[in-house]
Amino acid sequence: MGGSFAKALRALPDDYRILALDKNPAALERARADGLIDGGFAPQDAPAMLAQCDIVFVCLYPQDSIAFLTRQKSFFKTGAIVTEIAGVKREIVNHLSDILRDDVDFICGHPMAGSEKEGLPHSGAGIFKDKIYIIMPLPSNKRENIEFFKALIRKIGFARVTETNCAVHDHKIAFTSQLCHVIASALVDSAEDTRITEFGGGSYEDLTRIAMINAPLWTELFLANKKELIFHITAFENSIQKIKQFIQENNAPALNAALQNVREKRIAMSKREASAQEA
Amino acid sequence: MGGSFAKALRALPDDYRILALDKNPAALERARADGLIDGGFAPQDAPAMLAQCDIVFVCLYPQDSIAFLTRQKSFFKTGAIVTEIAGVKREIVNHLSDILRDDVDFICGHPMAGSEKEGLPHSGAGIFKDKIYIIMPLPSNKRENIEFFKALIRKIGFARVTETNCAVHDHKIAFTSQLCHVIASALVDSAEDTRITEFGGGSYEDLTRIAMINAPLWTELFLANKKELIFHITAFENSIQKIKQFIQENNAPALNAALQNVREKRIAMSKREASAQEA
Repeated sequence: MGGSFAKALRALPDDYRILALDKNPAALERARADGLIDGGFAPQDAPAMLAQCDIVFVCLYPQDSIAFLTRQKSFFKTGAIVTEIAGVKREIVNHLSDILRDDVDFICGHPMAGSEKEGLPHSGAGIFKDKIYIIMPLPSNKRENIEFFKALIRKIGFARVTETNCAVHDHKIAFTSQLCHVIASALVDSAEDTRITEFGGGSYEDLTRIAMINAPLWTELFLANKKELIFHITAFENSIQKIKQFIQENNAPALNAALQNVREKRIAMSKREASAQEA
Repeated sequence: MGGSFAKALRALPDDYRILALDKNPAALERARADGLIDGGFAPQDAPAMLAQCDIVFVCLYPQDSIAFLTRQKSFFKTGAIVTEIAGVKREIVNHLSDILRDDVDFICGHPMAGSEKEGLPHSGAGIFKDKIYIIMPLPSNKRENIEFFKALIRKIGFARVTETNCAVHDHKIAFTSQLCHVIASALVDSAEDTRITEFGGGSYEDLTRIAMINAPLWTELFLANKKELIFHITAFENSIQKIKQFIQENNAPALNAALQNVREKRIAMSKREASAQEA
Protein backbone atom coordinates (compact mmCIF):
# COMPACT_ATOMS: atom_id res chain seq x y z
CA MET A 1 0.00 0.00 0.00
CA GLY A 2 2.86 2.36 0.79
CA GLY A 3 4.26 1.74 -2.69
CA SER A 4 0.89 2.43 -4.27
CA PHE A 5 0.54 5.73 -2.39
CA ALA A 6 4.04 6.78 -3.50
CA LYS A 7 3.32 5.91 -7.14
CA ALA A 8 -0.01 7.73 -7.07
CA LEU A 9 1.49 10.86 -5.47
CA ARG A 10 4.47 10.81 -7.86
CA ALA A 11 2.08 10.73 -10.83
CA LEU A 12 0.45 14.03 -9.77
CA PRO A 13 1.58 17.35 -11.27
CA ASP A 14 2.32 18.60 -7.73
CA ASP A 15 6.02 18.40 -6.97
CA TYR A 16 5.90 16.36 -3.76
CA ARG A 17 9.09 15.38 -1.99
CA ILE A 18 8.42 11.75 -1.06
CA LEU A 19 10.33 10.02 1.74
CA ALA A 20 9.85 6.36 2.57
CA LEU A 21 10.60 4.21 5.59
CA ASP A 22 10.86 0.44 5.23
CA LYS A 23 12.59 -2.47 6.90
CA ASN A 24 13.65 -3.77 3.48
CA PRO A 25 16.69 -1.76 2.20
CA ALA A 26 16.45 -3.37 -1.27
CA ALA A 27 12.89 -2.11 -1.74
CA LEU A 28 13.96 1.41 -0.73
CA GLU A 29 16.96 1.27 -3.07
CA ARG A 30 14.80 0.15 -5.96
CA ALA A 31 12.17 2.83 -5.25
CA ARG A 32 14.89 5.48 -5.22
CA ALA A 33 16.50 4.17 -8.40
CA ASP A 34 13.09 4.26 -10.10
CA GLY A 35 12.61 7.90 -9.05
CA LEU A 36 9.63 6.89 -6.98
CA ILE A 37 10.98 8.34 -3.73
CA ASP A 38 13.41 11.14 -2.93
CA GLY A 39 14.82 9.46 0.15
CA GLY A 40 14.67 6.13 1.98
CA PHE A 41 15.01 5.52 5.71
CA ALA A 42 15.56 2.45 7.86
CA PRO A 43 13.19 1.99 10.85
CA GLN A 44 15.81 3.19 13.33
CA ASP A 45 16.07 6.48 11.39
CA ALA A 46 12.35 7.24 11.69
CA PRO A 47 12.86 10.39 13.84
CA ALA A 48 15.11 11.99 11.21
CA MET A 49 12.54 11.34 8.50
CA LEU A 50 9.40 12.26 10.45
CA ALA A 51 10.88 15.66 11.39
CA GLN A 52 10.69 16.55 7.66
CA CYS A 53 7.18 15.24 6.84
CA ASP A 54 4.06 17.39 6.48
CA ILE A 55 1.91 14.35 5.68
CA VAL A 56 2.62 10.84 6.96
CA PHE A 57 0.89 7.68 5.70
CA VAL A 58 1.48 4.82 8.15
CA CYS A 59 0.90 1.62 6.16
CA LEU A 60 1.40 -1.22 8.62
CA TYR A 61 -0.56 -4.10 10.13
CA PRO A 62 -2.95 -2.84 12.86
CA GLN A 63 -0.81 -3.73 15.90
CA ASP A 64 2.38 -2.52 14.25
CA SER A 65 0.59 0.68 13.33
CA ILE A 66 -0.30 1.42 16.94
CA ALA A 67 3.23 0.52 18.09
CA PHE A 68 4.80 2.81 15.47
CA LEU A 69 2.49 5.75 16.21
CA THR A 70 3.09 5.41 19.94
CA ARG A 71 6.85 5.00 19.66
CA GLN A 72 7.31 7.89 17.22
CA LYS A 73 4.74 10.20 18.80
CA SER A 74 7.27 12.82 19.87
CA PHE A 75 9.06 12.88 16.50
CA PHE A 76 6.28 14.04 14.19
CA LYS A 77 6.68 17.54 12.78
CA THR A 78 4.57 20.27 14.38
CA GLY A 79 1.47 20.83 12.24
CA ALA A 80 1.81 17.51 10.40
CA ILE A 81 -1.12 15.42 9.23
CA VAL A 82 -0.60 11.78 10.23
CA THR A 83 -2.87 9.02 8.93
CA GLU A 84 -2.91 5.24 9.15
CA ILE A 85 -4.79 2.73 7.04
CA ALA A 86 -5.50 -0.24 9.32
CA GLY A 87 -8.63 -2.23 8.45
CA VAL A 88 -9.92 -2.30 12.05
CA LYS A 89 -10.08 0.80 14.25
CA ARG A 90 -11.12 -0.53 17.68
CA GLU A 91 -7.55 -0.84 18.94
CA ILE A 92 -6.55 2.51 17.44
CA VAL A 93 -9.41 4.13 19.34
CA ASN A 94 -8.37 2.34 22.55
CA HIS A 95 -4.85 3.77 22.17
CA LEU A 96 -5.76 7.30 21.06
CA SER A 97 -4.30 8.84 24.21
CA ASP A 98 -0.95 7.20 23.37
CA ILE A 99 -1.09 8.54 19.81
CA LEU A 100 -2.68 12.01 19.78
CA ARG A 101 -0.62 15.15 20.10
CA ASP A 102 -2.09 18.65 20.31
CA ASP A 103 0.04 20.02 17.49
CA VAL A 104 -0.28 17.03 15.12
CA ASP A 105 -3.54 16.15 13.31
CA PHE A 106 -4.13 12.40 13.37
CA ILE A 107 -6.70 11.22 10.78
CA CYS A 108 -8.20 7.71 10.90
CA GLY A 109 -8.67 6.39 7.37
CA HIS A 110 -9.20 3.12 5.54
CA PRO A 111 -8.64 2.88 1.78
CA MET A 112 -11.01 0.16 0.52
CA ALA A 113 -8.48 -0.95 -2.05
CA GLY A 114 -5.85 -3.60 -2.28
CA SER A 115 -4.72 -6.67 -4.12
CA GLU A 116 -4.01 -10.27 -3.25
CA LYS A 117 -0.46 -9.61 -4.51
CA GLU A 118 1.98 -8.06 -2.06
CA GLY A 119 5.12 -5.97 -2.30
CA LEU A 120 6.45 -2.99 -4.23
CA PRO A 121 6.55 -4.68 -7.67
CA HIS A 122 2.78 -5.33 -7.47
CA SER A 123 1.88 -1.89 -6.17
CA GLY A 124 0.37 0.79 -8.37
CA ALA A 125 -1.98 3.76 -8.36
CA GLY A 126 -4.41 1.70 -10.45
CA ILE A 127 -5.67 -0.18 -7.40
CA PHE A 128 -7.27 3.06 -6.12
CA LYS A 129 -9.35 3.69 -9.23
CA ASP A 130 -13.13 3.76 -8.60
CA LYS A 131 -12.55 2.75 -4.96
CA ILE A 132 -13.90 4.15 -1.71
CA TYR A 133 -11.78 5.72 1.04
CA ILE A 134 -13.44 5.66 4.44
CA ILE A 135 -12.42 8.40 6.84
CA MET A 136 -13.40 8.66 10.49
CA PRO A 137 -12.92 12.25 11.69
CA LEU A 138 -12.10 12.65 15.37
CA PRO A 139 -13.25 15.59 17.52
CA SER A 140 -9.61 16.70 17.56
CA ASN A 141 -9.33 16.97 13.75
CA LYS A 142 -9.15 20.40 12.12
CA ARG A 143 -11.85 20.66 9.48
CA GLU A 144 -9.46 22.23 6.97
CA ASN A 145 -7.10 19.27 7.32
CA ILE A 146 -9.97 16.81 6.75
CA GLU A 147 -10.96 18.74 3.61
CA PHE A 148 -7.33 18.86 2.41
CA PHE A 149 -6.99 15.10 3.00
CA LYS A 150 -10.27 14.31 1.19
CA ALA A 151 -9.14 16.38 -1.78
CA LEU A 152 -5.76 14.62 -1.81
CA ILE A 153 -7.18 11.09 -1.82
CA ARG A 154 -9.56 12.04 -4.62
CA LYS A 155 -6.59 13.38 -6.58
CA ILE A 156 -4.72 10.08 -6.26
CA GLY A 157 -7.63 8.19 -7.81
CA PHE A 158 -10.26 7.28 -5.22
CA ALA A 159 -13.79 7.74 -6.55
CA ARG A 160 -15.47 8.49 -3.27
CA VAL A 161 -15.02 9.25 0.40
CA THR A 162 -17.35 7.73 3.00
CA GLU A 163 -17.31 9.66 6.26
CA THR A 164 -18.29 7.79 9.41
CA ASN A 165 -17.01 6.99 12.90
CA CYS A 166 -14.73 4.16 14.04
CA ALA A 167 -17.47 2.04 15.63
CA VAL A 168 -19.67 2.11 12.52
CA HIS A 169 -16.61 1.46 10.37
CA ASP A 170 -15.67 -1.67 12.31
CA HIS A 171 -19.25 -2.97 12.20
CA LYS A 172 -19.70 -2.42 8.45
CA ILE A 173 -16.21 -3.57 7.47
CA ALA A 174 -16.69 -6.80 9.41
CA PHE A 175 -19.48 -7.50 6.91
CA THR A 176 -18.22 -6.17 3.56
CA SER A 177 -14.61 -7.20 3.98
CA GLN A 178 -13.84 -9.64 6.80
CA LEU A 179 -16.95 -11.84 6.45
CA CYS A 180 -16.27 -12.06 2.69
CA HIS A 181 -12.73 -13.26 3.39
CA VAL A 182 -14.02 -15.82 5.90
CA ILE A 183 -16.57 -17.09 3.35
CA ALA A 184 -14.03 -17.27 0.51
CA SER A 185 -11.63 -19.13 2.81
CA ALA A 186 -14.30 -21.60 3.95
CA LEU A 187 -15.32 -22.17 0.32
CA VAL A 188 -11.74 -23.12 -0.59
CA ASP A 189 -11.36 -25.14 2.63
CA SER A 190 -14.44 -27.21 1.76
CA ALA A 191 -13.32 -27.99 -1.81
CA GLU A 192 -12.74 -31.72 -2.27
CA ASP A 193 -9.62 -31.13 -4.37
CA THR A 194 -7.76 -28.51 -6.44
CA ARG A 195 -9.11 -29.96 -9.74
CA ILE A 196 -12.52 -28.46 -9.04
CA THR A 197 -11.95 -25.58 -11.44
CA GLU A 198 -12.32 -28.06 -14.34
CA PHE A 199 -16.00 -27.66 -13.52
CA GLY A 200 -15.93 -23.91 -12.97
CA GLY A 201 -17.90 -21.32 -14.86
CA GLY A 202 -16.42 -18.30 -13.11
CA SER A 203 -18.62 -18.12 -10.00
CA TYR A 204 -16.33 -20.25 -7.85
CA GLU A 205 -13.28 -18.38 -9.12
CA ASP A 206 -14.91 -14.98 -8.39
CA LEU A 207 -16.03 -16.01 -4.92
CA THR A 208 -12.61 -17.39 -3.91
CA ARG A 209 -10.09 -14.98 -5.50
CA ILE A 210 -9.64 -13.23 -2.14
CA ALA A 211 -8.84 -16.61 -0.54
CA MET A 212 -5.30 -16.10 -1.90
CA ILE A 213 -5.10 -14.44 1.44
CA ASN A 214 -2.26 -12.84 3.43
CA ALA A 215 -2.72 -15.20 6.39
CA PRO A 216 -0.90 -13.24 9.14
CA LEU A 217 -2.61 -9.94 8.22
CA TRP A 218 -6.11 -11.42 8.11
CA THR A 219 -5.57 -13.45 11.26
CA GLU A 220 -4.82 -10.14 12.98
CA LEU A 221 -7.77 -8.34 11.37
CA PHE A 222 -10.27 -11.12 12.20
CA LEU A 223 -9.18 -11.25 15.85
CA ALA A 224 -8.99 -7.46 16.21
CA ASN A 225 -12.63 -7.19 15.11
CA LYS A 226 -13.82 -10.43 16.66
CA LYS A 227 -17.11 -9.26 18.18
CA GLU A 228 -18.41 -7.58 15.00
CA LEU A 229 -17.18 -10.40 12.76
CA ILE A 230 -18.78 -13.16 14.86
CA PHE A 231 -22.05 -11.18 14.76
CA HIS A 232 -22.02 -11.14 10.94
CA ILE A 233 -20.83 -14.75 10.55
CA THR A 234 -23.78 -15.81 12.70
CA ALA A 235 -26.26 -13.75 10.67
CA PHE A 236 -24.83 -15.24 7.47
CA GLU A 237 -25.06 -18.76 8.91
CA ASN A 238 -28.73 -18.11 9.72
CA SER A 239 -29.40 -16.95 6.15
CA ILE A 240 -27.71 -19.99 4.64
CA GLN A 241 -29.54 -22.26 7.08
CA LYS A 242 -32.86 -20.75 5.99
CA ILE A 243 -32.14 -21.40 2.31
CA LYS A 244 -30.84 -24.90 3.10
CA GLN A 245 -34.05 -25.71 4.94
CA PHE A 246 -36.24 -24.56 2.02
CA ILE A 247 -34.22 -26.90 -0.22
CA GLN A 248 -34.40 -29.80 2.23
CA GLU A 249 -38.18 -29.39 2.53
CA ASN A 250 -38.61 -29.06 -1.27
CA ASN A 251 -40.34 -25.77 -0.49
CA ALA A 252 -40.21 -24.27 -3.98
CA PRO A 253 -42.52 -21.27 -3.28
CA ALA A 254 -40.55 -20.15 -0.20
CA LEU A 255 -37.21 -20.73 -1.95
CA ASN A 256 -38.33 -18.82 -5.03
CA ALA A 257 -39.64 -15.93 -2.88
CA ALA A 258 -36.38 -15.76 -0.91
CA LEU A 259 -34.28 -15.71 -4.11
CA GLN A 260 -36.56 -13.11 -5.69
CA ASN A 261 -36.13 -10.94 -2.60
CA VAL A 262 -32.35 -11.38 -2.73
CA ARG A 263 -32.33 -10.46 -6.42
CA GLU A 264 -34.23 -7.23 -5.79
CA LYS A 265 -32.06 -6.32 -2.80
CA ARG A 266 -28.85 -6.89 -4.78
CA ILE A 267 -30.15 -4.89 -7.75
CA ALA A 268 -31.04 -2.04 -5.36
CA MET A 269 -27.43 -2.13 -4.08
CA SER A 270 -26.12 -1.86 -7.65
CA LYS A 271 -28.44 1.05 -8.49
CA ARG A 272 -27.42 2.91 -5.35
CA GLU A 273 -23.79 2.28 -6.24
CA ALA A 274 -24.23 3.48 -9.83
CA SER A 275 -25.95 6.72 -8.78
CA ALA A 276 -23.25 7.35 -6.14
CA GLN A 277 -20.55 6.99 -8.78
CA GLU A 278 -22.34 9.47 -11.05
CA ALA A 279 -22.66 11.96 -8.21
CA MET B 1 -28.30 -18.87 -24.12
CA GLY B 2 -30.09 -19.69 -27.37
CA GLY B 3 -29.40 -16.18 -28.58
CA SER B 4 -25.73 -16.46 -27.65
CA PHE B 5 -25.39 -19.76 -29.55
CA ALA B 6 -27.03 -18.20 -32.62
CA LYS B 7 -24.75 -15.16 -32.50
CA ALA B 8 -21.64 -17.33 -32.05
CA LEU B 9 -22.59 -19.65 -34.93
CA ARG B 10 -23.48 -16.70 -37.19
CA ALA B 11 -20.06 -15.18 -36.57
CA LEU B 12 -18.30 -18.29 -37.96
CA PRO B 13 -17.15 -18.43 -41.60
CA ASP B 14 -19.29 -21.58 -42.06
CA ASP B 15 -22.56 -20.75 -43.76
CA TYR B 16 -24.97 -22.27 -41.26
CA ARG B 17 -28.71 -22.03 -41.78
CA ILE B 18 -30.00 -21.10 -38.32
CA LEU B 19 -33.59 -21.73 -37.29
CA ALA B 20 -34.97 -20.68 -33.92
CA LEU B 21 -37.97 -21.66 -31.86
CA ASP B 22 -39.24 -19.34 -29.14
CA LYS B 23 -42.51 -18.56 -27.38
CA ASN B 24 -41.80 -14.84 -27.85
CA PRO B 25 -42.67 -13.80 -31.46
CA ALA B 26 -41.10 -10.34 -31.00
CA ALA B 27 -37.71 -11.87 -30.12
CA LEU B 28 -37.87 -14.10 -33.21
CA GLU B 29 -38.84 -11.13 -35.41
CA ARG B 30 -35.98 -9.06 -34.08
CA ALA B 31 -33.49 -11.92 -34.52
CA ARG B 32 -34.63 -12.36 -38.10
CA ALA B 33 -34.49 -8.63 -38.84
CA ASP B 34 -30.94 -8.55 -37.45
CA GLY B 35 -29.92 -11.40 -39.77
CA LEU B 36 -29.20 -13.56 -36.75
CA ILE B 37 -31.57 -16.36 -37.78
CA ASP B 38 -32.88 -17.58 -41.13
CA GLY B 39 -36.26 -18.60 -39.79
CA GLY B 40 -38.33 -18.38 -36.60
CA PHE B 41 -40.88 -20.86 -35.31
CA ALA B 42 -43.55 -20.78 -32.62
CA PRO B 43 -43.62 -23.71 -30.16
CA GLN B 44 -46.58 -25.37 -31.93
CA ASP B 45 -44.55 -25.44 -35.15
CA ALA B 46 -41.66 -27.36 -33.60
CA PRO B 47 -42.16 -30.48 -35.79
CA ALA B 48 -41.84 -28.46 -39.01
CA MET B 49 -38.60 -26.92 -37.79
CA LEU B 50 -37.02 -30.02 -36.23
CA ALA B 51 -37.48 -31.99 -39.48
CA GLN B 52 -34.92 -29.59 -41.05
CA CYS B 53 -32.30 -29.51 -38.28
CA ASP B 54 -29.02 -31.44 -38.32
CA ILE B 55 -28.00 -30.01 -34.93
CA VAL B 56 -30.48 -28.96 -32.24
CA PHE B 57 -29.57 -26.96 -29.12
CA VAL B 58 -32.39 -27.20 -26.58
CA CYS B 59 -31.91 -24.20 -24.26
CA LEU B 60 -34.67 -24.50 -21.66
CA TYR B 61 -35.04 -24.90 -17.90
CA PRO B 62 -34.35 -28.51 -16.83
CA GLN B 63 -37.97 -29.69 -16.52
CA ASP B 64 -39.03 -27.88 -19.70
CA SER B 65 -36.06 -29.43 -21.44
CA ILE B 66 -37.17 -32.97 -20.58
CA ALA B 67 -40.77 -32.17 -21.54
CA PHE B 68 -39.69 -30.74 -24.90
CA LEU B 69 -37.35 -33.62 -25.73
CA THR B 70 -40.03 -36.18 -24.80
CA ARG B 71 -42.83 -34.44 -26.67
CA GLN B 72 -40.80 -33.81 -29.82
CA LYS B 73 -38.96 -37.15 -29.78
CA SER B 74 -40.54 -38.46 -32.98
CA PHE B 75 -39.98 -35.20 -34.92
CA PHE B 76 -36.18 -34.95 -34.87
CA LYS B 77 -34.48 -35.52 -38.24
CA THR B 78 -32.86 -38.93 -38.75
CA GLY B 79 -29.14 -38.64 -38.04
CA ALA B 80 -29.50 -35.36 -36.11
CA ILE B 81 -27.38 -34.40 -33.13
CA VAL B 82 -29.59 -33.13 -30.31
CA THR B 83 -28.10 -31.51 -27.24
CA GLU B 84 -29.48 -29.74 -24.18
CA ILE B 85 -27.75 -27.46 -21.71
CA ALA B 86 -29.53 -27.97 -18.39
CA GLY B 87 -27.40 -27.35 -15.30
CA VAL B 88 -28.49 -30.59 -13.57
CA LYS B 89 -28.52 -33.97 -15.33
CA ARG B 90 -30.13 -36.35 -12.80
CA GLU B 91 -33.63 -35.89 -14.20
CA ILE B 92 -32.38 -36.09 -17.77
CA VAL B 93 -30.74 -39.42 -16.94
CA ASN B 94 -33.95 -40.64 -15.28
CA HIS B 95 -35.88 -39.84 -18.46
CA LEU B 96 -33.37 -41.10 -21.03
CA SER B 97 -35.71 -43.87 -22.20
CA ASP B 98 -38.32 -41.19 -23.03
CA ILE B 99 -35.75 -39.13 -24.94
CA LEU B 100 -33.33 -41.45 -26.79
CA ARG B 101 -33.99 -42.60 -30.35
CA ASP B 102 -31.76 -45.11 -32.19
CA ASP B 103 -31.30 -42.82 -35.19
CA VAL B 104 -30.76 -39.53 -33.30
CA ASP B 105 -27.61 -38.83 -31.27
CA PHE B 106 -28.49 -37.17 -27.99
CA ILE B 107 -25.51 -35.41 -26.30
CA CYS B 108 -25.67 -34.23 -22.67
CA GLY B 109 -23.79 -30.96 -22.34
CA HIS B 110 -23.47 -28.03 -19.96
CA PRO B 111 -21.87 -24.77 -21.09
CA MET B 112 -20.29 -23.21 -17.97
CA ALA B 113 -21.14 -19.74 -19.19
CA GLY B 114 -23.90 -17.27 -18.62
CA SER B 115 -24.75 -13.86 -17.36
CA GLU B 116 -27.01 -12.45 -14.69
CA LYS B 117 -28.75 -10.55 -17.52
CA GLU B 118 -31.41 -12.41 -19.45
CA GLY B 119 -32.94 -12.20 -22.91
CA LEU B 120 -31.80 -11.75 -26.49
CA PRO B 121 -30.49 -8.16 -26.13
CA HIS B 122 -28.02 -9.32 -23.47
CA SER B 123 -26.90 -12.43 -25.34
CA GLY B 124 -23.59 -12.60 -27.18
CA ALA B 125 -20.81 -14.97 -28.19
CA GLY B 126 -18.52 -13.12 -25.77
CA ILE B 127 -19.97 -14.97 -22.77
CA PHE B 128 -18.36 -18.20 -24.08
CA LYS B 129 -14.83 -16.82 -24.25
CA ASP B 130 -12.33 -18.70 -22.03
CA LYS B 131 -15.17 -20.80 -20.60
CA ILE B 132 -15.50 -24.54 -20.06
CA TYR B 133 -18.10 -26.76 -21.75
CA ILE B 134 -18.80 -29.98 -19.87
CA ILE B 135 -19.98 -32.90 -21.96
CA MET B 136 -21.20 -36.23 -20.63
CA PRO B 137 -21.01 -38.84 -23.39
CA LEU B 138 -23.57 -41.65 -23.17
CA PRO B 139 -22.89 -45.24 -24.26
CA SER B 140 -25.26 -44.55 -27.17
CA ASN B 141 -23.22 -41.62 -28.55
CA LYS B 142 -21.28 -42.07 -31.78
CA ARG B 143 -17.65 -41.07 -31.17
CA GLU B 144 -17.49 -39.07 -34.41
CA ASN B 145 -20.49 -37.01 -33.30
CA ILE B 146 -18.86 -36.31 -29.93
CA GLU B 147 -15.68 -35.19 -31.73
CA PHE B 148 -17.69 -33.03 -34.15
CA PHE B 149 -19.56 -31.46 -31.25
CA LYS B 150 -16.37 -30.78 -29.28
CA ALA B 151 -14.82 -29.11 -32.34
CA LEU B 152 -17.95 -27.00 -32.84
CA ILE B 153 -18.08 -25.69 -29.28
CA ARG B 154 -14.39 -24.83 -29.45
CA LYS B 155 -15.06 -22.93 -32.69
CA ILE B 156 -17.77 -20.82 -31.03
CA GLY B 157 -15.34 -19.68 -28.36
CA PHE B 158 -15.16 -22.13 -25.49
CA ALA B 159 -11.61 -22.58 -24.24
CA ARG B 160 -11.92 -26.11 -23.00
CA VAL B 161 -14.08 -29.21 -22.87
CA THR B 162 -14.33 -31.27 -19.68
CA GLU B 163 -15.55 -34.82 -20.35
CA THR B 164 -17.24 -36.66 -17.49
CA ASN B 165 -20.44 -38.51 -16.65
CA CYS B 166 -23.74 -37.14 -15.41
CA ALA B 167 -23.32 -38.26 -11.77
CA VAL B 168 -19.90 -36.63 -11.42
CA HIS B 169 -21.20 -33.54 -13.21
CA ASP B 170 -24.08 -33.13 -10.76
CA HIS B 171 -21.77 -33.61 -7.77
CA LYS B 172 -19.14 -31.12 -8.97
CA ILE B 173 -21.60 -28.53 -10.29
CA ALA B 174 -23.45 -28.55 -6.97
CA PHE B 175 -20.19 -27.20 -5.54
CA THR B 176 -18.80 -24.83 -8.19
CA SER B 177 -22.12 -23.38 -9.28
CA GLN B 178 -25.11 -24.06 -7.04
CA LEU B 179 -23.33 -23.71 -3.68
CA CYS B 180 -21.82 -20.42 -4.89
CA HIS B 181 -25.28 -19.12 -5.76
CA VAL B 182 -26.60 -20.20 -2.34
CA ILE B 183 -23.70 -18.43 -0.62
CA ALA B 184 -24.09 -15.24 -2.67
CA SER B 185 -27.82 -15.24 -1.93
CA ALA B 186 -27.30 -15.78 1.79
CA LEU B 187 -24.70 -13.00 1.83
CA VAL B 188 -27.21 -10.55 0.34
CA ASP B 189 -29.98 -11.90 2.56
CA SER B 190 -27.91 -11.21 5.67
CA ALA B 191 -27.01 -7.62 4.69
CA GLU B 192 -28.48 -5.13 7.14
CA ASP B 193 -29.43 -2.70 4.37
CA THR B 194 -28.75 -1.79 0.72
CA ARG B 195 -26.39 1.06 1.70
CA ILE B 196 -23.72 -1.44 2.66
CA THR B 197 -21.79 -0.86 -0.58
CA GLU B 198 -20.75 2.56 0.78
CA PHE B 199 -18.30 0.45 2.77
CA GLY B 200 -17.37 -1.90 -0.07
CA GLY B 201 -13.92 -2.45 -1.50
CA GLY B 202 -14.97 -4.88 -4.21
CA SER B 203 -15.01 -8.15 -2.26
CA TYR B 204 -18.68 -7.95 -1.32
CA GLU B 205 -19.60 -6.86 -4.83
CA ASP B 206 -17.62 -9.75 -6.38
CA LEU B 207 -19.08 -12.32 -4.01
CA THR B 208 -22.69 -11.24 -4.57
CA ARG B 209 -22.87 -10.35 -8.28
CA ILE B 210 -24.49 -13.74 -9.01
CA ALA B 211 -27.15 -12.98 -6.39
CA MET B 212 -28.87 -10.93 -9.12
CA ILE B 213 -30.35 -14.34 -9.62
CA ASN B 214 -33.02 -15.74 -11.94
CA ALA B 215 -35.16 -16.98 -9.04
CA PRO B 216 -37.40 -19.53 -10.83
CA LEU B 217 -34.46 -21.11 -12.71
CA TRP B 218 -32.26 -21.47 -9.64
CA THR B 219 -35.15 -22.70 -7.49
CA GLU B 220 -35.55 -25.49 -10.03
CA LEU B 221 -31.80 -26.19 -10.22
CA PHE B 222 -31.35 -26.27 -6.43
CA LEU B 223 -34.25 -28.68 -5.95
CA ALA B 224 -33.29 -30.86 -8.93
CA ASN B 225 -29.84 -31.41 -7.38
CA LYS B 226 -30.95 -31.35 -3.77
CA LYS B 227 -28.91 -34.29 -2.45
CA GLU B 228 -25.58 -33.12 -3.88
CA LEU B 229 -26.22 -29.49 -2.97
CA ILE B 230 -27.15 -30.26 0.65
CA PHE B 231 -23.95 -32.33 0.91
CA HIS B 232 -21.81 -29.36 -0.18
CA ILE B 233 -23.73 -26.77 1.89
CA THR B 234 -23.09 -28.92 4.96
CA ALA B 235 -19.37 -29.26 4.18
CA PHE B 236 -19.15 -25.49 3.67
CA GLU B 237 -21.01 -24.86 6.95
CA ASN B 238 -18.48 -27.10 8.72
CA SER B 239 -15.58 -25.13 7.23
CA ILE B 240 -17.04 -21.78 8.23
CA GLN B 241 -17.83 -23.15 11.70
CA LYS B 242 -14.20 -24.25 12.09
CA ILE B 243 -12.89 -20.77 11.19
CA LYS B 244 -15.52 -19.12 13.42
CA GLN B 245 -14.41 -21.24 16.36
CA PHE B 246 -10.73 -20.32 15.88
CA ILE B 247 -11.81 -16.65 15.98
CA GLN B 248 -14.05 -17.13 19.01
CA GLU B 249 -11.23 -18.87 20.91
CA ASN B 250 -8.66 -16.22 19.87
CA ASN B 251 -6.66 -19.13 18.48
CA ALA B 252 -4.29 -17.13 16.28
CA PRO B 253 -1.91 -20.02 15.42
CA ALA B 254 -4.74 -22.33 14.26
CA LEU B 255 -6.45 -19.52 12.35
CA ASN B 256 -3.22 -18.48 10.67
CA ALA B 257 -2.46 -22.12 9.73
CA ALA B 258 -5.95 -22.61 8.30
CA LEU B 259 -5.70 -19.41 6.23
CA GLN B 260 -2.21 -20.32 5.04
CA ASN B 261 -3.52 -23.71 3.94
CA VAL B 262 -6.44 -22.07 2.13
CA ARG B 263 -4.07 -19.65 0.41
CA GLU B 264 -1.87 -22.48 -0.89
CA LYS B 265 -4.87 -24.54 -2.00
CA ARG B 266 -6.37 -21.61 -3.90
CA ILE B 267 -3.03 -20.75 -5.53
CA ALA B 268 -2.72 -24.41 -6.61
CA MET B 269 -6.16 -24.12 -8.25
CA SER B 270 -5.06 -21.00 -10.13
CA LYS B 271 -1.84 -22.65 -11.34
CA ARG B 272 -3.72 -25.73 -12.51
CA GLU B 273 -6.15 -23.45 -14.31
CA ALA B 274 -3.39 -21.41 -15.96
CA SER B 275 -1.56 -24.51 -17.23
CA ALA B 276 -4.84 -25.95 -18.55
CA GLN B 277 -5.50 -22.76 -20.51
CA GLU B 278 -2.02 -22.88 -22.03
CA ALA B 279 -2.49 -26.53 -23.06
